[in-house]
Amino acid sequence: MSTQRYGAGIWHFATYVDRYATDGYGAPRTLVEMIDLAGQVEDLTVVDINFPFPGGGDVSLPTIDAALKRNGLSVIGITPEIYTRQFAKGAFTNPDPGLRRLANEMCNEAAKMVRHFGADYVKLWPGQDGWDYPFQVDHREIWKLSVEGVAELASQNPDLKFVIEYKPREPRVHMSYDSVARTLLGIEKMGQPNVGILLDFGHSLYGGESPADAAQLAIDHGRLFGMDVNDNLRGWDDDMIAGSVHPIELFEFFWTLRKNGWEGVWQLDQFPFREDSVETANSAIGFLKRIERALDRLDFDALKAAQKRQDAVAALNLARGALFGD
Amino acid sequence: MSTQRYGAGIWHFATYVDRYATDGYGAPRTLVEMIDLAGQVEDLTVVDINFPFPGGGDVSLPTIDAALKRNGLSVIGITPEIYTRQFAKGAFTNPDPGLRRLANEMCNEAAKMVRHFGADYVKLWPGQDGWDYPFQVDHREIWKLSVEGVAELASQNPDLKFVIEYKPREPRVHMSYDSVARTLLGIEKMGQPNVGILLDFGHSLYGGESPADAAQLAIDHGRLFGMDVNDNLRGWDDDMIAGSVHPIELFEFFWTLRKNGWEGVWQLDQFPFREDSVETANSAIGFLKRIERALDRLDFDALKAAQKRQDAVAALNLARGALFGD
Amino acid sequence: MSTQRYGAGIWHFATYVDRYATDGYGAPRTLVEMIDLAGQVEDLTVVDINFPFPGGGDVSLPTIDAALKRNGLSVIGITPEIYTRQFAKGAFTNPDPGLRRLANEMCNEAAKMVRHFGADYVKLWPGQDGWDYPFQVDHREIWKLSVEGVAELASQNPDLKFVIEYKPREPRVHMSYDSVARTLLGIEKMGQPNVGILLDFGHSLYGGESPADAAQLAIDHGRLFGMDVNDNLRGWDDDMIAGSVHPIELFEFFWTLRKNGWEGVWQLDQFPFREDSVETANSAIGFLKRIERALDRLDFDALKAAQKRQDAVAALNLARGALFGD
Amino acid sequence: MSTQRYGAGIWHFATYVDRYATDGYGAPRTLVEMIDLAGQVEDLTVVDINFPFPGGGDVSLPTIDAALKRNGLSVIGITPEIYTRQFAKGAFTNPDPGLRRLANEMCNEAAKMVRHFGADYVKLWPGQDGWDYPFQVDHREIWKLSVEGVAELASQNPDLKFVIEYKPREPRVHMSYDSVARTLLGIEKMGQPNVGILLDFGHSLYGGESPADAAQLAIDHGRLFGMDVNDNLRGWDDDMIAGSVHPIELFEFFWTLRKNGWEGVWQLDQFPFREDSVETANSAIGFLKRIERALDRLDFDALKAAQKRQDAVAALNLARGALFGD
Repeated sequence: MSTQRYGAGIWHFATYVDRYATDGYGAPRTLVEMIDLAGQVEDLTVVDINFPFPGGGDVSLPTIDAALKRNGLSVIGITPEIYTRQFAKGAFTNPDPGLRRLANEMCNEAAKMVRHFGADYVKLWPGQDGWDYPFQVDHREIWKLSVEGVAELASQNPDLKFVIEYKPREPRVHMSYDSVARTLLGIEKMGQPNVGILLDFGHSLYGGESPADAAQLAIDHGRLFGMDVNDNLRGWDDDMIAGSVHPIELFEFFWTLRKNGWEGVWQLDQFPFREDSVETANSAIGFLKRIERALDRLDFDALKAAQKRQDAVAALNLARGALFGD
Repeated sequence: MSTQRYGAGIWHFATYVDRYATDGYGAPRTLVEMIDLAGQVEDLTVVDINFPFPGGGDVSLPTIDAALKRNGLSVIGITPEIYTRQFAKGAFTNPDPGLRRLANEMCNEAAKMVRHFGADYVKLWPGQDGWDYPFQVDHREIWKLSVEGVAELASQNPDLKFVIEYKPREPRVHMSYDSVARTLLGIEKMGQPNVGILLDFGHSLYGGESPADAAQLAIDHGRLFGMDVNDNLRGWDDDMIAGSVHPIELFEFFWTLRKNGWEGVWQLDQFPFREDSVETANSAIGFLKRIERALDRLDFDALKAAQKRQDAVAALNLARGALFGD
Repeated sequence: MSTQRYGAGIWHFATYVDRYATDGYGAPRTLVEMIDLAGQVEDLTVVDINFPFPGGGDVSLPTIDAALKRNGLSVIGITPEIYTRQFAKGAFTNPDPGLRRLANEMCNEAAKMVRHFGADYVKLWPGQDGWDYPFQVDHREIWKLSVEGVAELASQNPDLKFVIEYKPREPRVHMSYDSVARTLLGIEKMGQPNVGILLDFGHSLYGGESPADAAQLAIDHGRLFGMDVNDNLRGWDDDMIAGSVHPIELFEFFWTLRKNGWEGVWQLDQFPFREDSVETANSAIGFLKRIERALDRLDFDALKAAQKRQDAVAALNLARGALFGD
Repeated sequence: MSTQRYGAGIWHFATYVDRYATDGYGAPRTLVEMIDLAGQVEDLTVVDINFPFPGGGDVSLPTIDAALKRNGLSVIGITPEIYTRQFAKGAFTNPDPGLRRLANEMCNEAAKMVRHFGADYVKLWPGQDGWDYPFQVDHREIWKLSVEGVAELASQNPDLKFVIEYKPREPRVHMSYDSVARTLLGIEKMGQPNVGILLDFGHSLYGGESPADAAQLAIDHGRLFGMDVNDNLRGWDDDMIAGSVHPIELFEFFWTLRKNGWEGVWQLDQFPFREDSVETANSAIGFLKRIERALDRLDFDALKAAQKRQDAVAALNLARGALFGD
């Protein structure tokens, strides 16, 4: 029987706006409503929660604790919202030092929440840190601030882990932490043991990486601290249902985790704009369970032998055979 | 002296939200505030206005008329908002016939506004008409409804023009009217004289077209009814300042218009998320004026001769010489 | 038992050069050697052959006939090589009228071969017809010549079918026949009954289309005359093994064919640069047979019901269930 | 008067084949013919030469020396051909240790040529090192071999510099050295002072980087040893004329070099498949000279001030003003 734990960002159960449907794709939901929806998903046991807490209103910690408890959920990470209006020109790299300070403070507050919930990490997704136009920024300065901002947090909170979720772009036209290699380069510069990567399968895919290769590289640097999955058409962060477009590369990604003995939560980062949140999560987790079984079926030795000679056809046939249940 | 008229979508002067900065990139603005900003742009004389009128509140027609008048602006088109929450699964192609009816009614209301303002057209941008996932839709049905929906509007309003602004994707993962050729194919099917294309330079570019070729094709079908410009990195509809990334293809686009004797407003469809609206518009129009002068300088005969032999180097040298003012 | 016929371009069994490995990825092969390799593939019964015959030397028709016969193969189409050095600036659109005439003659010679082999069509892949640079060509002229060139062939050979294989780009930076809609627009203009589309799954995919949607559109215009499959990473025509990256969209594509009652050969257009030709073909056909069985399992009524409400999750679950053999 | 030196890869003056025009886009040229063409370009003073020497035949060193001398050319780098048939599955990462040894030996031979010509570096472009299919390779092993292979060369030749020219893909579907950050990560691992990056503007662009940012990052690591320029449509390595598509980002790239005091040759890496080699080079260098003059005009202080506040519009206006010669 599988002991694999599954998780999701709590925003999976929110409703969304975009620049066109400014009235939102559904009525707003409170955090407690989101948690109660998460609780309806089969096999979901952990969530990542934004901070300040989403959904408006003044929700108290005891209320959240109770909602989590009654739904059998625990918290894996806290994601400070360092990408709202005030941070439109960046959090760690904002031209205004006062706003950089504010970002630091918000992340430190998020760190307190990590301690409260007994979570694993503060998740940093600096979506507004980057640039839009040619000539807009001093690239040395932007990168320096990107690295220093995270390093400072890590040294302020040596008891906690910080994970950086890199992404090529959106909402900025280009994000500073845009790829696995760039992020590792920055982390190596920081020289802190408690900073790692949260690898988003879809970000890796649409950034032109092989997610399996990206995972291996992060593991080999001892920095793969977390991950989440979804899918897209390789051109944008569509946050579609995991495996709905790229099931084979998803399988290779999880195979990479298993062969390295990487154990951790398999998380979802999906945005069901027009779909039912619970059904969307169930569909994804259902497929992840198929992948689990396929990993059990996969002949690792034969696959490694095929890889030793770069025999793409043999390797693909083995992978297909396991995944498609022949 | 140039007699070229310049225009902009009124949303150029709005503030925006996206799925991350849900609190918006700036405080909301009323329609009148947007018009007053548009009035500050040098050389802007026409605007395209969303309907229902944006910016909230119950703004009366006389108030809008007065705001336009004091800013020396007239209206070129009305854009019905057939892409908000209720139309999340499509306007013309919504699975719910009641919502399809509602979309039709909203467009007919927009047609009345066109008459009120003495504008040129109803602009249809069916951004939610399409699909997200493999297997999600019956493609025959979706396309049939896309074509019939517009044809119905055209026959209901034979005194007016309707323009379709195609776009590859966003907010749907794939839009029905995704390219110039697809849109022309649909328009030919409709068999109505009063349906044409509004060609958005950026949509064409990131859809993998050459905007100059797309313009020529629409012109050759007698269907280029309008256009707007902006720029992007060819992977997404970034709606950046016109000419900020692709000045040479922008120049080729306008050259195509001029050599065909196409006369109409040069419009902006830019989204200055983090920039000053007025400065952004001025920067773009300033560059468009450079293009105007470059067109005057360009040696059309020499260029045509180079094209006759597909001499890319000679053609490029001529274009560069004119555009960069050597 | 399946009666589905499988085919391949004979170039699947060639060796290749590119601009770097100018000495080729393998020793050159004669046409007869290619045919003998094709004969080794399980379940392959038809081939598409380039003309002039590839592989060098003066191979006689009786020799080819014999080779085909001993391998149990018949010919589905002939592909004239209108994309070699002399046609570097186009076949139908070449600036030199003499070369345009030469292209026409070569295609007429190919038509004779179609008659000789009792094949279905002349396949036109005008890979050099298009442009590379901004300002390089007169777009009206290029498109006019593209359409007229094919129309002329069709009227010269009313007893035969001509299929156009569109593709976004390569080797030109942009091809004239770049998409399903553009090609249909051209075909409609020709007004000939014997011109249709050969839809290459991979071309459609990396051109930003949904191949299922493209197939439906071509079918609805009565112009889907042929097809072939392969796979890629959506950014280039990688011609990888069918289903190796996008199995779900491939399944949707074949579902579209079946539900429309489209019957024809399922062909491969793969380029095994570094792989064994026969194993590559077997791997692909093996997966296509899985798709055949999955189509038998798929609940068409339930799927159509889900599509009627655009229920992406239900539709995906149904498709996955059938394809992955749950 | 400008003292800037200009260079080109000698392959700029070759003719090319691709997988379709297998008879080549022109008659083959000898190395001496290529050098004589290079000599016709105005202001070209240095070349990068492939090794083994291209163009066939047994060309002697004295013959090459003489050809260079009479054309006023010197050699900046030697590019070993570690991407031909024998290396189809990789040079440094080939599954066959014998072929890995062969690659090492070829690079050591190239090193001798660097010494002979008094050139600056051996240029490594491991275009076949990577993978094509999911599951094809052991990513840890491929990266390990990639890093070790270059490190070994550097330690074998401590008197010379080695530059790695990274590229996202082609001919492999994915290259190991795919980005500036990945390459820097590998170089840091090597711990050798004599390994750096040759930054190809086009590779950076179509890999989703900002070339200016990539250059700054390489400079900040002390590893920008060389560069070359060209242009493309951001989706493929089109190797078009520099500035023909992205003049503004090209300008930002050179501005980055100048503000960092980076001095070196401005090289071309263009592939004029269908164009005249000399005219193509002249067109590019002509535009690079415009950039030189624009850099002289550009108000660095005003630009830095705009960047300090991330004022995209002001920065763009300054850059445009200088580049377009207002």
